[in-house]
Amino acid sequence: MSDPESQQPGRYAVILAGGIGSRFWPASTPTRPKQLLPLGGERPLILETVDRARRLVGKDRVRILTGHGLVDPFRRAVPDLEEHEFLVEPIARSTGPALVWAAHEIESMEPGALMISLHSDHVIQPFEEFENTIDRACRAATERHGLVCLGIEPARPETGYGYIETGEDLGEGVSSVLRFHEKPDAATAAEYASSGRFLWNSGIFVWRARDLLEEAANHAHEMKTAFPQLQLGDLEAYFRTVEPVSVDVGVLERSDRVEVARASFAWDDVGTWSALDRTRTADEHGNVVVGDASILEGSGNVVWAEDGPVRLFGVDDLVVVRSSDEVLVMPKSKAADLKRFITYLETP
Amino acid sequence: MSDPESQQPGRYAVILAGGIGSRFWPASTPTRPKQLLPLGGERPLILETVDRARRLVGKDRVRILTGHGLVDPFRRAVPDLEEHEFLVEPIARSTGPALVWAAHEIESMEPGALMISLHSDHVIQPFEEFENTIDRACRAATERHGLVCLGIEPARPETGYGYIETGEDLGEGVSSVLRFHEKPDAATAAEYASSGRFLWNSGIFVWRARDLLEEAANHAHEMKTAFPQLQLGDLEAYFRTVEPVSVDVGVLERSDRVEVARASFAWDDVGTWSALDRTRTADEHGNVVVGDASILEGSGNVVWAEDGPVRLFGVDDLVVVRSSDEVLVMPKSKAADLKRFITYLETP
Repeated sequence: MSDPESQQPGRYAVILAGGIGSRFWPASTPTRPKQLLPLGGERPLILETVDRARRLVGKDRVRILTGHGLVDPFRRAVPDLEEHEFLVEPIARSTGPALVWAAHEIESMEPGALMISLHSDHVIQPFEEFENTIDRACRAATERHGLVCLGIEPARPETGYGYIETGEDLGEGVSSVLRFHEKPDAATAAEYASSGRFLWNSGIFVWRARDLLEEAANHAHEMKTAFPQLQLGDLEAYFRTVEPVSVDVGVLERSDRVEVARASFAWDDVGTWSALDRTRTADEHGNVVVGDASILEGSGNVVWAEDGPVRLFGVDDLVVVRSSDEVLVMPKSKAADLKRFITYLETP
Repeated sequence: MSDPESQQPGRYAVILAGGIGSRFWPASTPTRPKQLLPLGGERPLILETVDRARRLVGKDRVRILTGHGLVDPFRRAVPDLEEHEFLVEPIARSTGPALVWAAHEIESMEPGALMISLHSDHVIQPFEEFENTIDRACRAATERHGLVCLGIEPARPETGYGYIETGEDLGEGVSSVLRFHEKPDAATAAEYASSGRFLWNSGIFVWRARDLLEEAANHAHEMKTAFPQLQLGDLEAYFRTVEPVSVDVGVLERSDRVEVARASFAWDDVGTWSALDRTRTADEHGNVVVGDASILEGSGNVVWAEDGPVRLFGVDDLVVVRSSDEVLVMPKSKAADLKRFITYLETP
């Protein structure tokens, strides 16, 4: 197998690492969002992600997009992270403006370079298959100057993910994109999952930095008036001027240069507490236990006991979390609805 | 209504207040057994019980039978308790030897006096009906020198209580006792509850102290050899020599002088966490909450949040306890089985 590096532009990885810490409340909080928790194994997701990105592109070519408040927590979780590896957003403006800024930085460092956009809080296994998919996506982005999404073969009729409808086969497991679909209802999800033509939108993207900038300029009216400030290097003004818009809505859903690379790795965005029974090892009764917990005559529970013990007797399919001095008890079936409960708790 | 006091011997109340604190674990512990918890209202059960006993017999005629370790906790819970109001057992030897000792003390203080034996951890309402039943039992004990149990009209086919089978009507709601029955299975309990002839054994007894001593001497071979030590006032030797036996097995089940007074008050021995939905006020969804807890879309739960908040979302009929740095989660249906779970937790 030839070395793709030798035939391709340099590669940079950008890690989206914002987050308000509500999906894994009370273990996650605004100052300790999900990516700081060990949701996929013994190490925090951010540490797994930085390691994975460095193996892909090398230590000096990884950048972490986040807010001021998370720089110190990340540096504690990943001790060898250096100041210059952070791209600190002055204010949060969603993924569109953040990734355009990152693309601008990368294009300045190395014109024509490839940019791999990752999330800080996904579980991906094994690395070799991930690397293989990224390589194919990089070749597609280099050859056709497309914006390449990584699409995951649906493992189940998941209603919590967006889907990508594939079009023409472009070779090497890469297709054109017919359309993006929002999170479907259960019946639609079942149809998607069995069709063979729909892939989960992983939110992982590969493109040449300059192609993202071009397509953002072509399509993302939310950002257009702010571009001059970016050129002038006035970051504060850029973020103050730009309208918040996701890269999906602002660019990908509008561009005709979007492609999708079918992934051959296992992927989970660990979106809710109930996902832990996929991403962490369960005992013989299907219980996932993190911390000091005992379970007798219970199955299928997810228990997170961080600041003191938790004892379960005769209960099934519950999420029980003890963290941040709080105790949360809910069925796994309510996990996707946790934000509504937090809103209820916050209502005076 | 004539004053029964004027026609009767003096009355003393003895409160059985031992306990190892397993039924309400983790809120109850060996140094904080159930009677120190506010299971019937806002005040600890022991305080309610001492108040009730003092209203029956007067402040100086109440004695509390317990172990060394509980004297200080009780004095903190009932600030005006004085040293001489305690009968401190050197070692726990079940209720038989303890009540015989108490009877011996009372008979020494006032020969011929009546003794009312109460538990420290029952919920009783209202006081007036309780007093009425005690008055009738006192008259029966005075007139016929019987050992009078208080029997409760079954409110449901409870399998957690012992039952008393009533015999001949002796007037004033008092009957002879045909037989004591152990905790029944569900079918038998249903039969008992609908028969009209079976009453719950409340464990509350009224007798002249000298009658208990007589009947213990007649029937309780477990205690007989230790009686001389009691007469000599050598308490340590008495408790060392005596065999542990409950007053029910050692005396009541063997004596033919046992009677039962049908109670007209509401009674609960608060035997398990699930009893709290009977003894404490529930919200409109049947949730009983003690402490800092929030419940959304849940019903029939018992929540005890003592050292930090507890949040329930979408769960029903659970017991959730946060106390003694532990968190316990179980269905109410498992509450009667809690000892087995504690044994499991203690097994290395």
